[in-house]
Amino acid sequence: MIKTDILIIGAGPTGLFTVFEAGLLKLKCHLIDALPQPGGQCSEIYPKKPIYDIPGFPEVLAGDLTANLLEQGRQFEPGFTLGERAETIEKQEDGSFIVTTNKGTQHQAPVVAIAGGLGSFEPRKPKIENIAYYEDKGVEYFIKDPEVYRDKKVVISGGGDSALDWSVFLTDVASQVTLVHRRNEFRGALDSVEKVQELKKQGKINLITPAEVTALHGNNKLEGITVTKEGEKILLETDHFIPLFGLSPKLGPIGDWGLEIVKNAIKVDTLDYQTNIPGIFAIGDVNTYEGKLKLILCGFHEATLMCQSAYKIINPGKKYVLKYTTVSGIDGFDGTRKEAPKAVVQSIN
Amino acid sequence: MIKTDILIIGAGPTGLFTVFEAGLLKLKCHLIDALPQPGGQCSEIYPKKPIYDIPGFPEVLAGDLTANLLEQGRQFEPGFTLGERAETIEKQEDGSFIVTTNKGTQHQAPVVAIAGGLGSFEPRKPKIENIAYYEDKGVEYFIKDPEVYRDKKVVISGGGDSALDWSVFLTDVASQVTLVHRRNEFRGALDSVEKVQELKKQGKINLITPAEVTALHGNNKLEGITVTKEGEKILLETDHFIPLFGLSPKLGPIGDWGLEIVKNAIKVDTLDYQTNIPGIFAIGDVNTYEGKLKLILCGFHEATLMCQSAYKIINPGKKYVLKYTTVSGIDGFDGTRKEAPKAVVQSIN
Ligand SMILES: Cc1cc2nc3c(=O)[nH]c(=O)nc-3n(C[C@H](O)[C@H](O)[C@H](O)COP(=O)(O)OP(=O)(O)OC[C@H]3O[C@@H](n4cnc5c(N)ncnc54)[C@H](O)[C@@H]3O)c2cc1C
Ligand SMILES: Cc1cc2nc3c(=O)[nH]c(=O)nc-3n(C[C@H](O)[C@H](O)[C@H](O)COP(=O)(O)OP(=O)(O)OC[C@H]3O[C@@H](n4cnc5c(N)ncnc54)[C@H](O)[C@@H]3O)c2cc1C
Repeated sequence: MIKTDILIIGAGPTGLFTVFEAGLLKLKCHLIDALPQPGGQCSEIYPKKPIYDIPGFPEVLAGDLTANLLEQGRQFEPGFTLGERAETIEKQEDGSFIVTTNKGTQHQAPVVAIAGGLGSFEPRKPKIENIAYYEDKGVEYFIKDPEVYRDKKVVISGGGDSALDWSVFLTDVASQVTLVHRRNEFRGALDSVEKVQELKKQGKINLITPAEVTALHGNNKLEGITVTKEGEKILLETDHFIPLFGLSPKLGPIGDWGLEIVKNAIKVDTLDYQTNIPGIFAIGDVNTYEGKLKLILCGFHEATLMCQSAYKIINPGKKYVLKYTTVSGIDGFDGTRKEAPKAVVQSIN
Repeated sequence: MIKTDILIIGAGPTGLFTVFEAGLLKLKCHLIDALPQPGGQCSEIYPKKPIYDIPGFPEVLAGDLTANLLEQGRQFEPGFTLGERAETIEKQEDGSFIVTTNKGTQHQAPVVAIAGGLGSFEPRKPKIENIAYYEDKGVEYFIKDPEVYRDKKVVISGGGDSALDWSVFLTDVASQVTLVHRRNEFRGALDSVEKVQELKKQGKINLITPAEVTALHGNNKLEGITVTKEGEKILLETDHFIPLFGLSPKLGPIGDWGLEIVKNAIKVDTLDYQTNIPGIFAIGDVNTYEGKLKLILCGFHEATLMCQSAYKIINPGKKYVLKYTTVSGIDGFDGTRKEAPKAVVQSIN
């Protein structure tokens, strides 16, 4: 059982900034995310694209914003359960909640902050008979740890940035990389397309287009696939098949937690973004209230106000007096301290 | 008469970010501030100190944050009335407001956003008989344009960072710089204190401590001052006397505009931070509501939500559909465009 002060569901920008604001109040956080990496939409959908409306950044790449938020929270040592989907929640007699993931990992906390964005990102799966049988036996929809593919034969399928970029990346890791796409045209950043073109010419990427993977073979684990190209069937030996057809967010199990849902979002009170269940908050894209804007900067504000109420739940009766970080500095849970250089009082003579 | 869409009172971080959010909605802004420079508390009180809780910045100097916010809004060409205090407001028959400053400058807009922080910064004035008579005739409490002091004799009084830093700065501009302080000890950044020490040794700053300026002399304009040092009176010729004893914010005239004031702040509705007078909004440190936190990041959120309602007032009946800056790019009023590099669709062969 993982225990923490604030259990955050969703490691997008809102969840990540909550770690920092909670830390200022000496509250510890643990984050669960269905994706293998933190950053939510910013890292999954548009890491290399610029955002122009983060206050104080005339321009920042979504991936850099994620990295900055991770760095900002680092002093407060958040825990992570990545690649798992929060599935069920149970209220305990002591008022705390136990949240269990689809892989059975259990987490307990007095406060739950749902920062689930548009929902947990679920892969779009190709319609191939038996594909479920091979999941985690050679078929993966995410790349969590590229080392898994070291010296293996890998087939990637898809026509967007993920398929292009991972094909490029894995040429240095896997013994063989095949990229299958149902069209000759790919859609992605210009340099990604050019890189694949180049690696194809060098024989480092085996490109099969226009084609589709139509069958999977193997005993107990994946051993080969059938690719159908313009009516013709090709049998390929492979250790891994990675369909990268994009992810689509689904509110999913959270929709059954007894929370008031309006237009696929969780209704909250703007006082502190608490839901209809006391102790469960909803912040960022996942919540709704009159005038709500699904913007990153709004999630930051919501997370900050929420932490004040979380503090009161976790420290009943104690009063928290807001301190400016500039004036008081920051004491990390890791023993580090950040503080502004002090003024000196010194005579001049 | 200066006309604009949103008239912003206060050019602190909240007012500055409003320019950007309004610009996204094609609304133009004009800012009034009592201070000679934008940035509010950040530039007046702690420009060289780090802030740690601006989301996405593990650390940023308050002065740099101000510069970034100015840069972010630059495309939307805000107007500025600096060094003037908004004094009166009058509602017009067409629903717009006319705001007049203490210097008589008039501004007209359908929407007024009060981003006045803790109030307009008013200088702490030394108690010297007749000082009011010499104001703007040689006595100044702010340095707006250092060129005014070119080849002049200047006396600065004060013992903090402003007094130290301006004394250092003016040695390159003025023909003579005298610094008077009632103690031998100064309180400021170590390097500022050391710099003054150094310049004093070089004879470039004439330091008189522990001493006070006790009388002002001159016909029609300042010509000299009396400094009292340990009971002894010294007569000094000077063109300018600049007491830098700090600024203290005063809600001031805004308190008489018929707005609902609670604990020195303006009560607002959290839907869009509108005050009890429709068309007048209050955002940032100047407002209050249940759960309010006087933090910069909260002002950013408030400004953003406010602009949505301002849009509806200014464009009645029109519907605004929120667009992501990453997806739609930004068209500045100055003709410039920012946009993310587009994905290409290209075949690989
Ligand atoms: C192309 C694009 C451009 C954009 N441009 C801008 C822009 O310019 N400015 C701007 O402000 N916003 C922009 N946005 C929106 C912005 O990305 C979102 O507002 C922001 O990501 C919301 O952050 P969040 O942390 O609330 O949620 P998300 O980023 O959606 O993160 C939520 C996370 O929760 C996880 N999750 C959900 N449910 C579960 C569960 N049950 N178990 C485990 N994990 C779960 C998801 O996997 C996800 O990682 C853009 C979005 C897109 C797609
Ligand atoms: C030492 C110090 C450290 C701080 N540290 C932090 C921190 O770490 N994190 C954080 O989030 N916040 C911090 N703050 C608070 C932060 O600076 C304020 O929240 C922020 O400046 C508020 O921004 P604002 O734009 O609402 O108002 P302000 O910055 O106060 O700006 C308001 C402006 O309005 C002007 N004004 C008011 N009335 C009038 C009028 N009638 N006519 C003309 N002009 C007028 C004023 O002159 C002023 O320039 C700190 C503050 C101080 C003093």
